[in-house]
Amino acid sequence: MLFLDCLDFCIRNILSFNGTKKVWDCMRTHDSVSILIFNTSRQCFVVVKQFRPAVYMCEVERHCPQVFQNQDKENCHLEDPLPAVVGVTYELCAGIVDKPDLSLEEVAREEILEECGYCVPATDLRKITSYRSGVGVTGSRHTLFYAEITDQMKTGKGGGQPEEGELIEVVEIPLEDSMKFAFDESLPKTPGVIFGFVWFQNNIAPKLPKK
Amino acid sequence: MLFLDCLDFCIRNILSFNGTKKVWDCMRTHDSVSILIFNTSRQCFVVVKQFRPAVYMCEVERHCPQVFQNQDKENCHLEDPLPAVVGVTYELCAGIVDKPDLSLEEVAREEILEECGYCVPATDLRKITSYRSGVGVTGSRHTLFYAEITDQMKTGKGGGQPEEGELIEVVEIPLEDSMKFAFDESLPKTPGVIFGFVWFQNNIAPKLPKK
Repeated sequence: MLFLDCLDFCIRNILSFNGTKKVWDCMRTHDSVSILIFNTSRQCFVVVKQFRPAVYMCEVERHCPQVFQNQDKENCHLEDPLPAVVGVTYELCAGIVDKPDLSLEEVAREEILEECGYCVPATDLRKITSYRSGVGVTGSRHTLFYAEITDQMKTGKGGGQPEEGELIEVVEIPLEDSMKFAFDESLPKTPGVIFGFVWFQNNIAPKLPKK
Repeated sequence: MLFLDCLDFCIRNILSFNGTKKVWDCMRTHDSVSILIFNTSRQCFVVVKQFRPAVYMCEVERHCPQVFQNQDKENCHLEDPLPAVVGVTYELCAGIVDKPDLSLEEVAREEILEECGYCVPATDLRKITSYRSGVGVTGSRHTLFYAEITDQMKTGKGGGQPEEGELIEVVEIPLEDSMKFAFDESLPKTPGVIFGFVWFQNNIAPKLPKK
């Protein structure tokens, strides 16, 4: 059941609020972590590129709105009207918090290893901040970490867990290209990538040893 | 039907992908805009504070997990086990793109007026960038704008549209407190606020006239 791991269920809620009953739909999701990864050996960021069904569906709707005209059908079968590449986004390495016995740092450490192939001690992870993501529909807590890696920490290929259907490509963005990359709207990406790169410029770049 | 305006439906999709069929749930939502608003008269940011049912439900689950034990029930009636304040977040002024005849700038202009009470010409809005939000479940396109306002542009109280159930409080964050605010995790907020404030530090603050 690919892509369902972060979603427990979609629920309709009724809450009495200011004297009137309000109805809304929301999705129950796990909290999550993401990691801004910087390779100090080669002065580049390590991000991931992956196919996102929800992004793909947005593009299908944009190009072929007729696909969505039968909104009553619970199951909607598509015959691949657009190439999969339109659903691919650049993102920070990330994962959901679904193992109660692991700390957030340990969850982040596992994701770096699984998705990007670098073995980083959990104690080396620096928390940047936490915030509420997707307040319109999910509202779960997201924690953003920063990790510095070196080429020597590479122990695997990364790529996620194919047996769980993850199809993740590891991509390196040189530091000198990072601001151009962050604001190039032709490269679809999550806000985490943009924020992470800008945060780095303010907080880490000034302290980097000069070349 | 409060809180449903951004959500058309929750859909289960089946897509043939790399030779195997994959199933996932996603929500169909509108594209959206948000606006980083800076009041040059008093050197402060203007953000909004609002109750978010999805955030509230997350907190209910964190504190009272038993509420969610009957997952089979489609309708879940709650008796307000926690005060509403736990579901309140700080956010950028924002809105969905649901009027096909308006440009993104015009949608943003309307939201600034409705939510914050300032009348800003659409041509004064500067696009910061766009990105994909909520790639796990929605994947819609979000465009972030920057707007400078003055006290003279204030034409109303803001607060959203009560008849649509919006309960929005306008909050001013002084520029000198903005970095502390952005990274204070005890003040629940969306990533847009944090990114916006950090972007401002890099792109606008250096050009501000010195006091």
